[in-house]
Formats: sequence, structure tokens, C-alpha cells
Amino acid sequence: MGKPVAGGPGILTDSMITVVDTVRPHHAKRTPLMAHLPDVTRQSTLAHRTRREPPAGEPSRNARLLERAGYVGKLMAGVYSYLPLGLRVLRNVEGIIREEMNSVGGQEVLMPALHPLANWETTGRQDMDILFRTKSGSADAVLGPTHEEVVTPLLATQVASYKDLPASVFQIQNKFRNEARPKSGLLRGREFGMKDMYSFHLSEADLEEYYERVAEAYRCVFERCGLGAVTHYTYASGGAFSEFSHEFQAVTPYGEDTIYLDHGKGIALNKEIIDRYPADEIAAMEQVTAIEVGNIFKLGTRFADAFGFRLPDASGVPQSIHMGCYGIGTTRLVGAIAEILSTDDAMVWPENVAPYHCHVVPMDAGRLELAESAAQALAAAGHSVLLDDRAVRAGAKLADADLIGLPHRVVIGARTAAEGLVEYTNRVSGRTVKVPVAELAAATAA
Amino acid sequence: MGKPVAGGPGILTDSMITVVDTVRPHHAKRTPLMAHLPDVTRQSTLAHRTRREPPAGEPSRNARLLERAGYVGKLMAGVYSYLPLGLRVLRNVEGIIREEMNSVGGQEVLMPALHPLANWETTGRQDMDILFRTKSGSADAVLGPTHEEVVTPLLATQVASYKDLPASVFQIQNKFRNEARPKSGLLRGREFGMKDMYSFHLSEADLEEYYERVAEAYRCVFERCGLGAVTHYTYASGGAFSEFSHEFQAVTPYGEDTIYLDHGKGIALNKEIIDRYPADEIAAMEQVTAIEVGNIFKLGTRFADAFGFRLPDASGVPQSIHMGCYGIGTTRLVGAIAEILSTDDAMVWPENVAPYHCHVVPMDAGRLELAESAAQALAAAGHSVLLDDRAVRAGAKLADADLIGLPHRVVIGARTAAEGLVEYTNRVSGRTVKVPVAELAAATAA
Repeated sequence: MGKPVAGGPGILTDSMITVVDTVRPHHAKRTPLMAHLPDVTRQSTLAHRTRREPPAGEPSRNARLLERAGYVGKLMAGVYSYLPLGLRVLRNVEGIIREEMNSVGGQEVLMPALHPLANWETTGRQDMDILFRTKSGSADAVLGPTHEEVVTPLLATQVASYKDLPASVFQIQNKFRNEARPKSGLLRGREFGMKDMYSFHLSEADLEEYYERVAEAYRCVFERCGLGAVTHYTYASGGAFSEFSHEFQAVTPYGEDTIYLDHGKGIALNKEIIDRYPADEIAAMEQVTAIEVGNIFKLGTRFADAFGFRLPDASGVPQSIHMGCYGIGTTRLVGAIAEILSTDDAMVWPENVAPYHCHVVPMDAGRLELAESAAQALAAAGHSVLLDDRAVRAGAKLADADLIGLPHRVVIGARTAAEGLVEYTNRVSGRTVKVPVAELAAATAA
Repeated sequence: MGKPVAGGPGILTDSMITVVDTVRPHHAKRTPLMAHLPDVTRQSTLAHRTRREPPAGEPSRNARLLERAGYVGKLMAGVYSYLPLGLRVLRNVEGIIREEMNSVGGQEVLMPALHPLANWETTGRQDMDILFRTKSGSADAVLGPTHEEVVTPLLATQVASYKDLPASVFQIQNKFRNEARPKSGLLRGREFGMKDMYSFHLSEADLEEYYERVAEAYRCVFERCGLGAVTHYTYASGGAFSEFSHEFQAVTPYGEDTIYLDHGKGIALNKEIIDRYPADEIAAMEQVTAIEVGNIFKLGTRFADAFGFRLPDASGVPQSIHMGCYGIGTTRLVGAIAEILSTDDAMVWPENVAPYHCHVVPMDAGRLELAESAAQALAAAGHSVLLDDRAVRAGAKLADADLIGLPHRVVIGARTAAEGLVEYTNRVSGRTVKVPVAELAAATAA
């Protein structure tokens, strides 16, 4: 090496050339179970940092918490980046939603954010004020705030016959809405993650049956995300599409919406439709604020008709196609969980969505070895583990652990360690026990 | 039910109210292994349709193939939707890339597509002609064609000390580039998927060492995606950033780039830099066309300097931060695999990226039961299986199977079935054998 091979003012020389032809043969194999191998992350290796103070000028409680905890970073009003811990939460939420949508026969697809304005003119929605506008080459384009204008003509190319219906497709993808005042952190972004599903049916009755199945799957999503107890299936306005739509509203003092609850009947109504309900019954209902974490709509035949998507039925007569649409803001759901399952200085993520199940926190460097044993024992039991191996003082570690908010915490101090014990806390129930490492995994399941 | 509860021109009635409070308790539990359960999809249930003819006016070979095969749908020039089969390929490619980036310590994050123009003014790149421009509220904004302008200030908030370096973060996310003539299908989109990784170092030497490790991980990516044999580590221009960058160029007659190969030395050069190499050596090299499937750059300190991202070293002296960036177009890679591993009417996906491993194709309805047994036997052996249970004629099924292009095919005809056999073909090697269902899984591994 080192011999120049270029003649003149030689620029490319052998010494600059590296031939990278060593292909690690084991990497040519599929390793589909990698995600399920023991999962211990050392906190010192994370691109992650908490803040003592909330970010200046951030009015949103969820964003203040999540930025302080190092989950997200704000790029501009209503636009956030997801740091490693925040992305793990988002991926967990997405995974739960994906499983539930698959369970009702939803097929995953992925549509673009960049739409021709022409498609929006076809449905007459080109003047919505939340549309981001741009030019793609010489064509007017918008950034998709929703995807009826794309999914309808797309499905028309894939559905050959009435026998192929019902069909249901969904995607998890970023939406763009140029909100006037995006001050609610992850709850109302200008760019945000969303699962949107669209179903196609030959009859209204078929749509209605499917709609109820999706509503049930939605309940499972919010239950699994830890919001089941506070989330209400709520009647709301159907807007331009139908008489009513339904929202899943998670009750919290910090909610943007107002809903009315009839606990006896198990009914919830969005304030926007209470004029359609008897005043004396409304007066008897509980009024609370809530965050809309999901919504489902019957769209009727409007979109399929606009794109000329009709199918001949068994007797050859062209039939209109009925559509339903079903949305869950994935990043909004992360924000709602943070907002609801937190205090000002601490979060408690449910295990299903937590970035890691367990936080192992040695109080000093002398306790690192025992901490490693504890982490390995938890990982062997199937838990994901964050091990705080940083050289910072104990108080700072505990404050960070509160902010990060993992549901299982193991604190390893000099005194308990001397007795061969570690201190385990279930942060959901508040239960704390001192156990030897060998009994730690059992303690997390108790 | 049915009793109206609304007094006046009653709109909301009990008959319209459905209380959805049945939470399936088993769904409240995590089911992390669902993705690895037996995976058999019946083709009749897919939102999927092949086309006899390529789409009109599509000049790109990969897009013609992938649209005909029902993998993608074109929304506008350079903008594609991914249908269920296409998304499965994309997810497999993303999964391989994710594993390899994790293997070199890359931490996954997710940054927005919507950027303040101000960040691009900070680096002086605000006038790039491929920038999509829009307005976010009253602020000028662009859609990210790359993310140096976002990742640099983001990492500055997460890296507290020189001890936290090196750090490397990556994302898999959609990029936007307003290409003048996007005529290459998935190879050059206006909106396209990309894995972009950025590394941060205290010294050029540390960057160089990491750069070589990433180069090796890239080789593994292309090897696992089935392009290892045709992909060359190629010297290219470093543009504004450094003397040279490196591209991973996959040789194909349909490539957009021209490269020169010295098989003896194991060197490849992009045509754009051959004036820096001795003319007689260039004359002796093989000239081929190729598709750039990945590229890696040393960025120097330019971006960190622009954002004032410096860190005091151990002696307290502020140091510049050296950055590397490492890109793989995920959708481009899907397009390249399709382009290279196909004929005009047939694809052969490598098992690692195929939407399903196995295609089970009964020639008529009488063979469905045996086909189900075959599919279950393959799924039990860990294969994902597409079962063509459609009521269409045998010739159409086989033509569709060629287009869909799964690597393992099982054809079940009346004659072989009568002998208790099925016909297995490994479409990569071309080997065909007739075996009983009990020996099918072994045949796929032979």
C-alpha cells in the first residue's frame, strides 16, 4: 500500500484505496428472531439526555414531559423528531395497532404523502385550509392529511369483481395538516404519524357490520396501550359524510374536547352533538374533558362515486361502493399515554408500550456487577432492560429514571447489595420488595 | 332497543346506539411472537391483481414489472404506493438494513419530513433545485431530501460531552426530491424510502475507522438482499464534502451509472472520477452500467460547524465534530432487486426479501385440499406461504406465479397428485423434483 498509482498531480492513490470484500458469511443468513433475543441496552451508549427544566416556550404538557425525558425533540411548531426511546414507544404502539388491524382482516399497504391536487379536485376537497401545498415538477401537489383521495383509485385497480369485496387496507404513515395553532405537542402536529384504514363494501349493511368489528378492535388497542379504563366510545358528528361518527375519547383534565358521559347507559356524547339529545338527559350526564385517540367514520358512497369506482354485481348491474374509514393518530396516542399516565416529573409507561420493561439502576460503580446480573436475569425472563451504567450521582439517576418512566425498576444500593438483595418496584402498582437476583424475574410477574 | 330517546325531530335514538365495551381479554396481552406464527395467506383474500400488459406510458422496466405484478401502484410521476406484496418486500429489505445498522451501533430515530427553510439557510443549501417548498403556518419550509440539517442540531441536544462520542443514529423514512425527470420507476422517485445514518466523531481518524465498518455492513446488506455478486464498492466524487465518496454499484445492463472495474485489483471507479486515474489503467478496465444502491460520505466538520455543534475535549478545548453519512434508498433497492433478478415476464425474489418464501399453486379446485396440506407443511417448517386458492384457470395461475416471483414453487396437478406427489421447483437454482408432501420441507432446504 502507499504506492501512488495516479500519474500527474496524483489524487487517487493505492494508500487511499480499501477493498471491502469481506462478507461476513453468517450475515448472509436470515436472523428473524433477532428482535426477541435478550435485550439489554446500556444507558451510557444511548444518544439520550434528560433535562432538568422543561423546554422554554413549550405550552404542551405532553411535549414538555417527553422533551425533558429525552423521548422527542422539537424541530418547529407541530413537528417533532423521535429519539431512540421515543421511537421504541411509537413502534410498540404501532405494533399493537398493526396486530389489531390484521385481526379484522386489514391488509397493510403504504401510500405516498405527496398527492396530485387533481385527486383532491375530484372529490371537491381541494380548498381545505389545512392542506400543505407544493409543486411536483409542473404539477400542483398537496401533502396528504388523509388518504381517501389516494386509496380509492388505488383499490379500484386491485379489486376486479364484487366477489373481492369486502376489502380493507390500512397503512401507518406520516400525515401533514397545516394546523393554525399547533400548541398541543404530540396531540396536534403539523406532521404526525397515523394509522388509517379504509374498508370497501357492496352494501351499507356490510359496512355497518364491519364498522362494529373495527370498533371492537379499537377498544382492544386502547386497552393494550393502558388507556382502556379511561377511554369512551363516543358519538360525534358525522360531518359531511354521515349522521354520526364515533370517537374514542380518553378522559383527562388536560383534554381538548368536552364529552358527556351517561355511566348508567354506558353512553358518551361529544359536546358538538348534544343539541340532538334531550336537554334533561344531558343535564344528568357527567361533563369531562378528553383527548380523542381514535375515530371511525362511515363515508357512504361519496368517494368511490367521485372516482367512478363501481362494480357490477352478480346480475351484472353496476353497484356503488360503500366505504368506511378508521383513524388512530399513532404519535398522538403516544402523547395521550404520556399525558394521562404521568405526573409533572414522572411517567409510568404501561409494559406493552414502554421503551424497555425494566430499568436497572445501580447507585454507584461498585454495584455495576450485581446490576449486570440483575439485567441478564430479567432479559432471560423475556424482559427488555435498560441498564443505567452511567457515572453520575445516585440522585440524578433516580430523577432520570422517574422521567424515563419504565414500569419495573430495580435499584441496587450498597446496603441491600451487602445483604445479597436488590430493591424491586412495580411502578404501576407501587409495590416494592427486596429480593435476591434469582427471584427478581418472579417478582416482576407477581 | 329502538325506543327513541331524542325528543324533537329525534336524530339520535337508542336503536342507533351500540355500546362497544366487550374487550377481548386475551388481546390485552402482548403477543410479540405473532409475526413468527405459521404464515399462510390465501391469495383470494389479497387486495391484489396482476395485469396482462404493462401500464401505458411507464418507461421504467422495474416499475412496469412491479405494477404488472401488483406490487406497486403509480400515483404520479416518481410517486408510488406499495400494495400488500410490495410492502412485504420493502419491510424485509428494511429489516435487513436495520439489523446491519444496529450491528455497527447505529441507534434508530425518526425525524420529520417537514423542515424549516431556516435550517437549510444555516448550511447554505437553501437553493438546491430538488427541494420541495411549502409554507408551515407563516414559516417557509421544505421537504427533506436528506437530514444533515435536522440531525446535526438534534444530536447537539443529546450529546452532553466528548465522552458520548462517537455516536451514530439512523432512520428509515421517506425523502422528497423534486427530480426533473423521474422516469426510472422506483430507482429515482420524487418521494422515496431511505435509510440514512449519520455518525459523529471527535477526530477524522475515528470517522475513518467507523466509515470502514459501515462499508462492511453495507456489503452484508447487499449480500443478504441477493445482490452481493453484482455489487461493487466504487470510488466516486466526494462532491462538496471530501475528495472521494463511495458508492455501492450493482451491475446491470439497465443501470443509470457507468463504472469501470479492475477485476485484478478489485477496484471500481465511477466514470465521474476517471480523469483522476491513469488513462492507460482506465483503458484496461471493464466498462459496465450499474445502479447505485448505496453511498457513503465523509462530511468533515462542515455541518457541525454550521450549527455551532462543538464539544470541549478532556482538556476543555472546544473541538470540531466530524460527521459521516451513509445512505441506502430502501425503495430504490427494491426496484434494483426487481430490475436485476428478473426477465420481462418473471421475477425471482431471493428468499430473504421475497414477500412469501413459497407459492403453492393447485391447478384446479379438486387439488385444493392437498394444496392446503402442502402449505401447512411448509409453514410448519418456518416458511411464509402464499396459497393460490383462486378459481382461475391453471395457465393464468402459472403466469401470475411467474410475475409474483416467489423463490419456492409447489405446483399440484391432477396427475402427480394421483401418485401422492407434488411438484417442487426451486426457482433460484431451477431444480424441480416430485415429492410427497411429507418431504416437501426437506426439498426446499436441499
